Amino acid sequence: MTRIVYVNGDYLPETEAKVSIFDRGFLFADGVYEVTSILGGKLIDFAGHAKRLQRSLDELAMANPVTEDELLAIHRELVRLNEIDEGLIYLQITRGAADRDFAYPKDATPTIVLFTQSKPGLAENPLARTGMKVISIEDQRWGRRDIKTVQLLYPSMGKMMAKAAGADDAWMVEDGHVTEGTSNNAYIVKGNTIVTRHLGNEILHGITRAAVLRFAREAQMVVEERPFSVAEAKAADEAFITSASAFVMPVVEMDGQPIGAGKPGNVTARLREIYLDEMRKAAV
Amino acid sequence: MTRIVYVNGDYLPETEAKVSIFDRGFLFADGVYEVTSILGGKLIDFAGHAKRLQRSLDELAMANPVTEDELLAIHRELVRLNEIDEGLIYLQITRGAADRDFAYPKDATPTIVLFTQSKPGLAENPLARTGMKVISIEDQRWGRRDIKTVQLLYPSMGKMMAKAAGADDAWMVEDGHVTEGTSNNAYIVKGNTIVTRHLGNEILHGITRAAVLRFAREAQMVVEERPFSVAEAKAADEAFITSASAFVMPVVEMDGQPIGAGKPGNVTARLREIYLDEMRKAAV
Repeated sequence: MTRIVYVNGDYLPETEAKVSIFDRGFLFADGVYEVTSILGGKLIDFAGHAKRLQRSLDELAMANPVTEDELLAIHRELVRLNEIDEGLIYLQITRGAADRDFAYPKDATPTIVLFTQSKPGLAENPLARTGMKVISIEDQRWGRRDIKTVQLLYPSMGKMMAKAAGADDAWMVEDGHVTEGTSNNAYIVKGNTIVTRHLGNEILHGITRAAVLRFAREAQMVVEERPFSVAEAKAADEAFITSASAFVMPVVEMDGQPIGAGKPGNVTARLREIYLDEMRKAAV
Repeated sequence: MTRIVYVNGDYLPETEAKVSIFDRGFLFADGVYEVTSILGGKLIDFAGHAKRLQRSLDELAMANPVTEDELLAIHRELVRLNEIDEGLIYLQITRGAADRDFAYPKDATPTIVLFTQSKPGLAENPLARTGMKVISIEDQRWGRRDIKTVQLLYPSMGKMMAKAAGADDAWMVEDGHVTEGTSNNAYIVKGNTIVTRHLGNEILHGITRAAVLRFAREAQMVVEERPFSVAEAKAADEAFITSASAFVMPVVEMDGQPIGAGKPGNVTARLREIYLDEMRKAAV
């Protein structure tokens, strides 16, 4: 089936969905994005993604071509047109097309693109039962990882390093401490305490992270937001990641060494269950 | 006049020049580029740019869709079609279009795009007589600046910071030492000695840099390739930058403070003259 995607006001077959070669998203990676999950045909935490999108745009002095209501309507129309039950919607906004110049153009119209990815079984991902293997790699990304830009080459390289090592993902390490995964936030569990890096410029301010930490605190778990080392991770009882598309996903091995019992832990399983239950209820 | 540009084998009016929204150059900044100057209708140091392009592609395990001969023919055809006497040719190669996934696609066809920018008076840029003003900013780029990728958002931000401060460009600083300008290599001159950062992952391996250092040594100047501090820069006799489009350009002020006499210096002027003379002779 040919997908119907959205480009600057038009709903088009994916084969016709194009942007100018002068688009600054293409020439300068001058663009930001969001990925929202769809479960049961509804959007998970749309409001959270819309809010972070606006923050990314504001940090880059980039105009938002749509209101939040318009954005929601586009999301829903794409879900309908593509008959998505479980899957993702990707959204990207760039500063638009202009003759190439490092300085921002004065009069470019922002480009907005959305497309769906159907992922049947997204919530029943078998990886949730077996757990992920990660490797640790040096974090070589730029300094403003809190802005969700399309400068994703290093995370892509990290994913390839992980695959080459027979792992599922890479956890990035800076000054001996884990920042995050290639496209997810990273957590360890020791006893009843969940440890994850504090917010700052060093990591993405995960929408799923915010929800999961809220649910963890409501469930009387202790949450410490601070950097943790690779050694701490390897000595943890459990480890997991969160992201909009993986939700809460156990990590059972790091650099070839089992974490805890080397299988998904109870804290992780419980958080995944709470997250999916609560977010399904709140889906729009 | 509507430019004729090159996209994946076709010469097209710029208004029709488009790439898929699924191009990894657009979604992941998974692409590399080169900019070659044109003087008197001929290409400056084409061989140097072709060689660096291949290195960037190799570092990212990205296929090159064209041979060096084909690339030269495309460059020349664009110069002819657009009647460029002085200006630039921009070239970008990406990993191509594929459904969005951090992992590299197995079977994508690389995208190749080229376009010209006419810049009459490029060699007679008045800035060569007055000199540039720079500000120092923190270098927040990723760790592999030796690969010429399109992850150019921070250099763009740096250019805007410079403009906001009434300057022409920003010199980026890491651990107290200058790495390079937003789109050029940085140099200081003290006595008969030229100092510029050594090659490594921290800076772009400038094609113009290589030529200028060769000419400097041939002219019996002393060249030190090592990091220099902001304080050293401010205490220098002269400063300058090199790039494919600015050639050798004097820097006369940093953070509002004059460098040396606060006007273009003799070493810089001589290097600019030698560079332009020699490269015009060798242009193809």
